[in-house]
Amino acid sequence: MRIDIITCLPRLLDSFFAHSILQRAQQGGYVEVVVHDLRDFTADKHRRVDDYAFGGGAGMVMQIEPIARCIRSLQNERAYDEIIYMTPDGERLNQQMTNILSLRQNLIILCGHYKGVDERVRELFVTKEVSIGDYVLSGGELAAAVLSDAIIRLLPGVLNDETSALTDSFQDNLLAPPVYTRPAEFEGHQVPAILLSGHEAKIDEWRHEQALERTRQRRPDLLE
Amino acid sequence: MRIDIITCLPRLLDSFFAHSILQRAQQGGYVEVVVHDLRDFTADKHRRVDDYAFGGGAGMVMQIEPIARCIRSLQNERAYDEIIYMTPDGERLNQQMTNILSLRQNLIILCGHYKGVDERVRELFVTKEVSIGDYVLSGGELAAAVLSDAIIRLLPGVLNDETSALTDSFQDNLLAPPVYTRPAEFEGHQVPAILLSGHEAKIDEWRHEQALERTRQRRPDLLE
Repeated sequence: MRIDIITCLPRLLDSFFAHSILQRAQQGGYVEVVVHDLRDFTADKHRRVDDYAFGGGAGMVMQIEPIARCIRSLQNERAYDEIIYMTPDGERLNQQMTNILSLRQNLIILCGHYKGVDERVRELFVTKEVSIGDYVLSGGELAAAVLSDAIIRLLPGVLNDETSALTDSFQDNLLAPPVYTRPAEFEGHQVPAILLSGHEAKIDEWRHEQALERTRQRRPDLLE
Repeated sequence: MRIDIITCLPRLLDSFFAHSILQRAQQGGYVEVVVHDLRDFTADKHRRVDDYAFGGGAGMVMQIEPIARCIRSLQNERAYDEIIYMTPDGERLNQQMTNILSLRQNLIILCGHYKGVDERVRELFVTKEVSIGDYVLSGGELAAAVLSDAIIRLLPGVLNDETSALTDSFQDNLLAPPVYTRPAEFEGHQVPAILLSGHEAKIDEWRHEQALERTRQRRPDLLE
């Protein structure tokens, strides 16, 4: 898989792709993530990529021309399955969408910043608009990192133990059950005895009940 | 405001807090963000902070002892309004929660990694569990960055133009209207004429209609 991220603040993403499973996934050849600086695609002598909004009001708007140039230069190199724009009014990301996107070959992720991109970018270039949640961030860079992380960890081989992702919250529409590790007692607080019993079938049953109970209490909507 | 982030992968967060408005907010004295390496609080000679799950199964679990030590050392310094644990089964973050948290003085944000933290951490220390959305990430670090960014940009003085945040999506339960900037024509695609009219009241009216229409189409749930 290849992910091209287009942003006017490429440095913001440096440490994120240089650590943890994202670094391991790139070194292992499971994914190639390339961050593009939008300022390399502007004809403006001050390298500006934003301007005031037509009609007035607070906040800058990202111009269509540098974005169009960047996207077209990438499309000249390869075909893309999706050109994704990160925006709070996009389709809300969930684990199902993440699963589907993890099967794609080439993705472009466009990060908005300031007040967002000129609407014509969305009409003419973007094929999918994605929101990571009902809140506003200072830019799409963190959202692009979230989307990339959620996708990349699902690529076969990226997690050390492949069964690990299958027991995550949401993969079966249930929240994950509680987990415990050493010490068995902490200041008088014990681990549930069942987990120390060594009885695998009963432990599985307990975990399923706990997952169901937690989902019922916290997210009954997932069970509907 | 002060935000203490507890993580076993502090380097992951380096670039986020060194750029963009998060850097400006810290330099301007609006917020102090301190990232704590959980490995500084373990008594293990290999500096491990995780161990196998009781009861077996894939994925490591973060141990209670280093987390307890770190939280208590912070609590010795000052009182905290909330100890927040980032987890996919937490309360879903939205703009309203962000507004409320932006009024607090001192926050601890605990990042899970691997399979998450020992359940007793949640029972004994955590006061608020927050999810940034219905998907699973490789760790809570990105989620902590998202939460911090959403909060910090709301602190008075952080955004260059304070009215900017008030016209964002969700602040009035509406999605934001489309925005446009120069050029007025791009390859035959024009900016809506109303935005070039200079008629402020009509532009405001058009924007409100567009915001309402977009919300109706994409997120009718926000209007209920």
